[in-house]
Amino acid sequence: MGEIIKGKPVADAISEELIQKVEMLKSKSITPKLAIVRVGADPSDLAYERGALKRCEAIGMLAEVKELPVDISQDDFIAELKKINEDKSVNGILTFRPFPKQLDEKVIKYVITPEKDVDCFSPVNVAKVMENDETGFAPCTPSAVMEILKYYKVPMKGKKAVVVGRSMVVGKPVSMLLLNENATVTICHSRTENMPAVCSEADILVVGIGRAKMIDSSYVKEGAVVIDVGINVDENGNMCGDVDTEDCLSKAAMITPVPAGVGSVTTSILAKQTIKACMQQNEI
Amino acid sequence: MGEIIKGKPVADAISEELIQKVEMLKSKSITPKLAIVRVGADPSDLAYERGALKRCEAIGMLAEVKELPVDISQDDFIAELKKINEDKSVNGILTFRPFPKQLDEKVIKYVITPEKDVDCFSPVNVAKVMENDETGFAPCTPSAVMEILKYYKVPMKGKKAVVVGRSMVVGKPVSMLLLNENATVTICHSRTENMPAVCSEADILVVGIGRAKMIDSSYVKEGAVVIDVGINVDENGNMCGDVDTEDCLSKAAMITPVPAGVGSVTTSILAKQTIKACMQQNEI
Repeated sequence: MGEIIKGKPVADAISEELIQKVEMLKSKSITPKLAIVRVGADPSDLAYERGALKRCEAIGMLAEVKELPVDISQDDFIAELKKINEDKSVNGILTFRPFPKQLDEKVIKYVITPEKDVDCFSPVNVAKVMENDETGFAPCTPSAVMEILKYYKVPMKGKKAVVVGRSMVVGKPVSMLLLNENATVTICHSRTENMPAVCSEADILVVGIGRAKMIDSSYVKEGAVVIDVGINVDENGNMCGDVDTEDCLSKAAMITPVPAGVGSVTTSILAKQTIKACMQQNEI
Repeated sequence: MGEIIKGKPVADAISEELIQKVEMLKSKSITPKLAIVRVGADPSDLAYERGALKRCEAIGMLAEVKELPVDISQDDFIAELKKINEDKSVNGILTFRPFPKQLDEKVIKYVITPEKDVDCFSPVNVAKVMENDETGFAPCTPSAVMEILKYYKVPMKGKKAVVVGRSMVVGKPVSMLLLNENATVTICHSRTENMPAVCSEADILVVGIGRAKMIDSSYVKEGAVVIDVGINVDENGNMCGDVDTEDCLSKAAMITPVPAGVGSVTTSILAKQTIKACMQQNEI
């Protein structure tokens, strides 16, 4: 019978470390600051924002929200983003995506200053993830996956990691991060033939494909570690992941739950990356 | 007994197509032009350059070489690169790398205009490869691998592709390109445990690890397609790949040779990407 591994202890350990860093920075009269750029008031953005603000406060750093009208024009949005780019008091910028239709992500991603881009929106940071350049910022969710694996001392070097899903927010970047830890990485997706057999070889199975409880025990090797990045709503209206946790526990050694798994760690990563950005900007 | 699949027919087919595109462009008074930036006179750079110039001439497009002194300063190099960026007659730029020590690739890669960067030096193009954004330019060698697979009608969708090596010039980008073709992709490297077993599951095995004849038949599944991206010198001073071709032919369905395999296709890719850049720049 496997163990449920929660995100909270990981987030707490990161926060503990960050509190000390913020104290050190404050002793130099520097207070790291995150700017959240939100267009409109999507409920899931608002929920994440509340968590992020609370996390930043607990760590002792600053955070502010720039709320923009849902019908803002592209030119106005870019002008606002440039102001935040240039604001010396801001060290990290998070923009909620997807944007409303009138805003072209493919244009705007070139506007955000890469040095403040703490959730890997800029192509400069995407390239750095692929190049294993640690001056860059990987996206928060895949970074949270890596922090969980490290916290629970999951061996990665030489091990087989299988990633289910190939999105730019989870699958592809987490594959690169696992590769950086010297795992042998396989990327599966909707077109993969015989996915249960492919996944059953994984020592580490990371799932972010967006299909509620798709992964049952037939996808899991005895003793595997399963990281569930999915966020879905099940037939009873409850939040669930991409993994059928109950069923997989018969075989997996460890599984992250949904909720209270990966999602609990992402705001700590956001704070961590903002503090890293602050230190880089101040050459500390 | 497997078949040796050569690069030349692939290169010829690409050239044939490009000749027609160049004719079409010339009818609009446009002649695509490649600029090659070479620092010093490394023999392997010179060999590649001769091939590229010959290819461009055969296709009917222009190519010119900017040779710079081996001790050029970073500032002078950047000034020269900017001149070529701004030269409206130039559509594509290839810079031979690695550079001499005094030139910092991590700075220079941000200088080259992404729209002219036909060998994926700019982070903008690295990100586009990862994002599957076809307006970008993938590096020539992994692109050559893909052209060979397509020319020889190797099925990729849903198939298992294993890539040996995780460099930024071969392994990582070719993994992304295979993923874009809906293969299930595994990336192996020096730290992979039991690599022969991992490789033996591949329908398509792409090898670019830089170790002469490392891959023997114990790495190959019956009926697999093996693409050898290695360029090494064997104990007798002859050029060889990363694959022991003779040994693997007993099991593989198709293998690219070295020489006369992938390397024969890269200059066609360079020409193809320059023509693509030219068409994008002219909005054709």
